[in-house]
Amino acid sequence: MKRTTALFLTLTFAVTSAAVAAQSPDREALMSMAQRIFAPLPEVVDNPDNPLSEAKVELGKMLYYDPRLSQSGFISCNSCHNLATYGVDNLPTSLGHRWAVGPRNSPTVLNAALHRTQFWDGRAADVEEQAQGPILNPIEMAIPGEAYAVDRIASMPGYVKWFERAFPDEEKPLNYRNIANAIGAFERTLTTPDRFDEFLKGDAQALSDDELAGLQVFVDYGCVGCHGGTALGGDILARFGVVESYWEATREFITIDQPTMPMDVGRFAVTQDANDLYVFKAPSLRNITRTYPYFHDGSVWSLRDATQIMARVQLGREMPEEDLDKLMAFYQALEGTIPEYALKLPILPASSKHTERPVFQ
Amino acid sequence: MKRTTALFLTLTFAVTSAAVAAQSPDREALMSMAQRIFAPLPEVVDNPDNPLSEAKVELGKMLYYDPRLSQSGFISCNSCHNLATYGVDNLPTSLGHRWAVGPRNSPTVLNAALHRTQFWDGRAADVEEQAQGPILNPIEMAIPGEAYAVDRIASMPGYVKWFERAFPDEEKPLNYRNIANAIGAFERTLTTPDRFDEFLKGDAQALSDDELAGLQVFVDYGCVGCHGGTALGGDILARFGVVESYWEATREFITIDQPTMPMDVGRFAVTQDANDLYVFKAPSLRNITRTYPYFHDGSVWSLRDATQIMARVQLGREMPEEDLDKLMAFYQALEGTIPEYALKLPILPASSKHTERPVFQ
Repeated sequence: MKRTTALFLTLTFAVTSAAVAAQSPDREALMSMAQRIFAPLPEVVDNPDNPLSEAKVELGKMLYYDPRLSQSGFISCNSCHNLATYGVDNLPTSLGHRWAVGPRNSPTVLNAALHRTQFWDGRAADVEEQAQGPILNPIEMAIPGEAYAVDRIASMPGYVKWFERAFPDEEKPLNYRNIANAIGAFERTLTTPDRFDEFLKGDAQALSDDELAGLQVFVDYGCVGCHGGTALGGDILARFGVVESYWEATREFITIDQPTMPMDVGRFAVTQDANDLYVFKAPSLRNITRTYPYFHDGSVWSLRDATQIMARVQLGREMPEEDLDKLMAFYQALEGTIPEYALKLPILPASSKHTERPVFQ
Repeated sequence: MKRTTALFLTLTFAVTSAAVAAQSPDREALMSMAQRIFAPLPEVVDNPDNPLSEAKVELGKMLYYDPRLSQSGFISCNSCHNLATYGVDNLPTSLGHRWAVGPRNSPTVLNAALHRTQFWDGRAADVEEQAQGPILNPIEMAIPGEAYAVDRIASMPGYVKWFERAFPDEEKPLNYRNIANAIGAFERTLTTPDRFDEFLKGDAQALSDDELAGLQVFVDYGCVGCHGGTALGGDILARFGVVESYWEATREFITIDQPTMPMDVGRFAVTQDANDLYVFKAPSLRNITRTYPYFHDGSVWSLRDATQIMARVQLGREMPEEDLDKLMAFYQALEGTIPEYALKLPILPASSKHTERPVFQ
């Protein structure tokens, strides 16, 4: 587990490297440090239990973009995880069936397959399990049951053929699990390697001086404790608000008229374990400049503010403006490239006379 | 106006060509007939008042896919005119801001630039004028005013640059009219030439025997009176329900739970002219197999039923099953190919701290 090791090495490096970035950065040293903390993004994220194939990924893409996976026929996976906006909807919390306002911010689907668990509270093991949730959630896509989802998809001859192609060894390829497996397979291709990955692979010139200075700050403050590894996050569940309450710290930043949510207890709602109170998944910082607004409740729009809040509530520190400047530069280096083919809308199979009609009232 | 001439020649041809398709079709004769009634789709539809450029079309595509052109940040042009489903939402009538259910079916954006007027009631002259409507409509995208739309877009440096590129000769390129001009320019590239166009251009083998038999029926019944020209429709406004009420004829086909709309008076609402009562634009039949459900109120899901209703209420005839079979084959030939580049989601410019936040409550 190279990634885990890297996380444990964090503190050591935070100390030994503090002297490095005083003036013009020592690129080789920074690169060498970064290589031990982070890892470059792979092209795809394999899952032995759901092996990728071209057909499965293409089918998954169709399902991902298909609003008929919602009861209303109006909401697709892409509605809340819009690939045109880096896999998010840029709303504080997401809208769903009959304009329901959900309780949490939609995390980006980009690089999500790398996360050790899924959802803000880690209640699903992987993207395949995750994909089973929103389709049936009454305030998201609101399909009334697994059989309903399967029947609607099975009513379209175009889809039936694709399931046969995508799951050639299965006697009944079209079932609810495989709907989610196909979507999961598509999501396993949504990694966004770019400059930072070139840097991690050995191109010491891939980042600018400012970005490297930001990297140094990022390491020095210990951010990598939760935001290390390949995705710069997604690996651990941690209490949000170690030193002070996240709730107090973020309320002043709520700048738009949004419903007042009760304080979110996080993973506690899943486990009923007091240790899990206010515990959330540390999100990936890949593409963080584009996945605003921030935190599980989308309460903060400014990445600079969000960073200061993290310093305050997690580390008990007030970050000087100059360090914030440097971090903002580093975040730029985390913007990646979305795979071309994923952005190309598929032409969806036609409904048939047997297709269950949309219900939106 | 070649297209207009073709329409006037329709009746003549309906008579003279009736004998042609008795057995195996005389392909050359049918082609020659079709060439006088229809015209192949152009690659783009020019407008001297809004000349196309690569930058303008690309900008238009970005705006078309951008949900920030709605107050909620959740609804884009593509929500109701989804290019993954042939430029429609496949809903009876469309959903809008706060889940409002609109009164009319979203017509496809594909080939719409060819229509002589826009909207079901012809109340806009062209796609540029049309595009100004839904953004501000309180039950569609619900932007509170032109200035609000302009301010939101102007708050994003990425967009500001694109407007300068797209409208290089204008002192203030970013204004509401140009938002619509850019979207209109994109729409002017959304034509779907395919086999039927190859046929019209001289490839007599481009259609199957069944499709040609359907073409003959289409002409024989006089369908081309309203559905001729390049788009097979979109040219004229006509009373829906000449022989009997469309309302009575379609009610029995409403198969899903949808709100009971009052009987739509059509263009009368625009002109207050009694001659315009129940007058609607005859829609294009290009891609008609995919733009279900049918009619201005989306009341009928089956194309076969819709065709029978048209025969009944417009022509006072009951169409035998064998003629319906043939027409269904002909409609297949009207499925076109959506331009590749249009399907590729653009990466949208990032919001800035000055960008008006989404309002969805």
